[in-house]
Amino acid sequence: MPDFLSPPDTIVDDVLAATAGLMPLLLSEPGCGARIVLQAERDTSKVAVLSGGGSGHEPAHAGFVGRGMLTGAIAGEVFASPGVEAVLAAIRACADAPGVLLIIKNYTGDRLNFGLAAERARAEGIEVATVLVADDIALPDAAQPRGLAGTVLVHKFAGHLAAAGVPLAELAARVQGFADRVLSLGMALSSCSVPGQAQSRRSPELGLGIHNEPGARKVQPADVDEALALVLDPLLAAADRRFGPDARLVVMLNDLGGCSTQELAVLTRRLLDRIGTDRIALMPRPAALMTSMDMHGFSLSLAPADDELLAALRAPVETLGWPGVVLPHAPTTFRPALQRSGEAPGHGTRDAGRGDALGRVAQALVDAQAELDALDAKTGDGDAGSTFAAGARAVAAALADDALSTGEDARLARELAALVEHSMGGSSGVLLSILLTTAAAELEAGAAWSAALGAGIARMRHYGGADAGDRTMLDALIPAAACLADGGTPAAAAGAAREGADATAGMERAGAGRSAAVPSDALRGVRDPGAEAVARAFAAFAGSDGAV
Amino acid sequence: MPDFLSPPDTIVDDVLAATAGLMPLLLSEPGCGARIVLQAERDTSKVAVLSGGGSGHEPAHAGFVGRGMLTGAIAGEVFASPGVEAVLAAIRACADAPGVLLIIKNYTGDRLNFGLAAERARAEGIEVATVLVADDIALPDAAQPRGLAGTVLVHKFAGHLAAAGVPLAELAARVQGFADRVLSLGMALSSCSVPGQAQSRRSPELGLGIHNEPGARKVQPADVDEALALVLDPLLAAADRRFGPDARLVVMLNDLGGCSTQELAVLTRRLLDRIGTDRIALMPRPAALMTSMDMHGFSLSLAPADDELLAALRAPVETLGWPGVVLPHAPTTFRPALQRSGEAPGHGTRDAGRGDALGRVAQALVDAQAELDALDAKTGDGDAGSTFAAGARAVAAALADDALSTGEDARLARELAALVEHSMGGSSGVLLSILLTTAAAELEAGAAWSAALGAGIARMRHYGGADAGDRTMLDALIPAAACLADGGTPAAAAGAAREGADATAGMERAGAGRSAAVPSDALRGVRDPGAEAVARAFAAFAGSDGAV
Repeated sequence: MPDFLSPPDTIVDDVLAATAGLMPLLLSEPGCGARIVLQAERDTSKVAVLSGGGSGHEPAHAGFVGRGMLTGAIAGEVFASPGVEAVLAAIRACADAPGVLLIIKNYTGDRLNFGLAAERARAEGIEVATVLVADDIALPDAAQPRGLAGTVLVHKFAGHLAAAGVPLAELAARVQGFADRVLSLGMALSSCSVPGQAQSRRSPELGLGIHNEPGARKVQPADVDEALALVLDPLLAAADRRFGPDARLVVMLNDLGGCSTQELAVLTRRLLDRIGTDRIALMPRPAALMTSMDMHGFSLSLAPADDELLAALRAPVETLGWPGVVLPHAPTTFRPALQRSGEAPGHGTRDAGRGDALGRVAQALVDAQAELDALDAKTGDGDAGSTFAAGARAVAAALADDALSTGEDARLARELAALVEHSMGGSSGVLLSILLTTAAAELEAGAAWSAALGAGIARMRHYGGADAGDRTMLDALIPAAACLADGGTPAAAAGAAREGADATAGMERAGAGRSAAVPSDALRGVRDPGAEAVARAFAAFAGSDGAV
Repeated sequence: MPDFLSPPDTIVDDVLAATAGLMPLLLSEPGCGARIVLQAERDTSKVAVLSGGGSGHEPAHAGFVGRGMLTGAIAGEVFASPGVEAVLAAIRACADAPGVLLIIKNYTGDRLNFGLAAERARAEGIEVATVLVADDIALPDAAQPRGLAGTVLVHKFAGHLAAAGVPLAELAARVQGFADRVLSLGMALSSCSVPGQAQSRRSPELGLGIHNEPGARKVQPADVDEALALVLDPLLAAADRRFGPDARLVVMLNDLGGCSTQELAVLTRRLLDRIGTDRIALMPRPAALMTSMDMHGFSLSLAPADDELLAALRAPVETLGWPGVVLPHAPTTFRPALQRSGEAPGHGTRDAGRGDALGRVAQALVDAQAELDALDAKTGDGDAGSTFAAGARAVAAALADDALSTGEDARLARELAALVEHSMGGSSGVLLSILLTTAAAELEAGAAWSAALGAGIARMRHYGGADAGDRTMLDALIPAAACLADGGTPAAAAGAAREGADATAGMERAGAGRSAAVPSDALRGVRDPGAEAVARAFAAFAGSDGAV
């Protein structure tokens, strides 16, 4: 299946049922011959505002039906105008209102069918007025510019005025006046899929309609800025001509259906930069508003801002599709506190024996690099030895620079945490840094090293998601720490770590970490390089070289 | 260009700048080494709620920063966790709050980097708690289920509770408790494009993560219902097991990035049907919430509804990305008034002479069918003669059935309007019906036929968008009506219509209608078949056969 659509003959009914299933709307009985959505609780003291047209433009038009926007919408088949009888039936359903305003996009089918319905409704004694939206600027000499996404702004404007009680004739005049000031232009990287039709994608075009008709011309933008300029520059030129270069603008960015949120965001940022936020009075949230099925393209609409329009666009509504408005501005920046807190390392006292022991650990891990890399090559990506050696070299260098507070437990743990985090990189460095950072806090609070180590290991398990038996450093760390907590000597702890590391060779399932995706066969008989490194480190600390 | 994205190294900055340019947010200085977005005016008396992770999931996470939801978000590169220093800097920026809650999606990189940042912040004296979201049910035995779109529900829940003043420890416990009750599962028809990487699309998969990693298994759904069942059925089974089959559910439909609005609507409708609206307590509006770039897929999330959750989800927020909630229900339907209004045709009086004249018109147009079709074949789609003949036959049949009120002007015009609308089809029928419907209203109001005809022609021009000189029926209609309005006889009007029709042969540009897209060369010397039909009709009415 190429998409998540239903069969072509049920798409329109599905879309309307979804809309009417989520919002307080009335839906015409399926199969009755008309597809109409109406507000469930209309204010019959106000002019009714109806719109509609072909389907395939969702959320237009049913998605804009709701208090404060459209009173109702009439849907045709995909990309085909609804019939005269359907439009007339929608008008009749609003006959209790003091007039009905029809908002018509400028396509022959819509004009004729909505027009005849209007005339027939008038003959029945219903007050009807029409507004034609022809916002497309793709063909400057077009006798009949098409109605595009700007229609959504017209819906919002009309719905707001109608809700405010503006009578029909005045409403029609003011809404037509606004519609005549909206300018839109679209472009797409490819044409769209039309349900039930074989797909043949066209290349990038500027001046798109919304019915998959070919655009005004082929284009070949090199990047997003060029694509944006192709659309925005003619619009801004037209706006300058029509409204003057100082007019503040309402700007609408419409996803024609196939843009990702990331694309819309990139377009938005470049759009704000290119227009300049000072010139933008308000924007609807960039969104899919008037689509052409899955067309991978966008349109922009501009209108001169005045207080009436801004108030209309800001007014809250109860619809599925209106995204609300935002006020663009230059982002306010702040400088985050990225410097390491506290004083520089090595400010504490020294303990020569502790320094020597750390030096032995560092040397042992540097010496073990090739061996650990080889172990890792069998079960992981072969860099475990290099990673531990990088940390070890950083510790050795700090010792050589006399930059470790070997005489103060908590301070030393913090200094080591920073060293391993920045020198080792990857998960191992972060995990050891979590252990040491947690241990430092415990030591600071007066805990013994064994308890501090235990607390650090607990956090390592928590964040790392591994546990004993998962073929990780923990398989050596946990028994060593337990030994120390029971009053064991460093040598005894080293022995426990060694036993733990050796036991990993018998573990045929890695529950977490580097070997989690490796088959059991490959693991059998191979020690985990992390656990092995820990065993070497404990042994070196206790005074032996720790090699098996 | 394949998309509207900026170069891979600027996408993340573009996305954040767009977000911070539309909403009241603070953005970390570009290039400073961390990418952080914060509410511009935080309530420092409340616990700060931070989240984040790799980019490419927009609107997550920056799009959920705002009053009532996240206090801030930390963004990594596309699909890569932000670094420890960046997370720590965000925590530090909220150090004035009575605690900081980190919401972490369950991926190793996020767990470790957010975890170490939390430990380091604690070491600096900042109260920090963490919540882990692991809502994926794709692999029932997974030791570490992934964090998916359900995280957005967790953001909303946590933001609401924090805004209500819940202290850190209680907040962490309640939010973790909720996070543990969220179940999610995703599927996609294809994998996504990753910026800067060569694109190789994978086929449909179930159990998707959000980093373009392969899904749990390949699937081959035959249609949208099967696709939906693949995702929904395991979720419902898990929900039944966990919460009981009677638990009402919060249901979230998330676009993974590449679904059109039509697809989301079809999925929504089928989803509501399959779960049953009675079981759904609330839904966020279906939307792109936690995406995987442009992945053409969706995920569903379920959580058991309780009053606390419903209140939290309903609370308004000021964010770019939270779509608000709706209450699904079975659509309420109504039966539109599609029947023709008024009485059946032919109830008025008769005028034998008028009937004879109409009969002559009908016969003339039937006789002219082949000739008009031939004219149309040169400049249009070759069916103009057939279209007029169809209308003429319907009039002749009505006359034969004695079903026309030939003695009453307005009534007759209405009856003819209905006949041509339904028998002719296409634009011509609707246009003539507009003319006749408008004329009927004028006649009803006491106007003379000449004035009524003029009013009808005006509406025809308005809705049809054509004017004199555009090679349409109007080129014969306008002079004929003008002649009648000047007191001319039917014969004089027929002469004017004939002159007008002949003149269309000299018009080398069709401004509207069937020939608008035909080159001038093809038009030269060819009369417009619509104008020709009008001339024949007027001539026949006046008593001649009207042929040239």
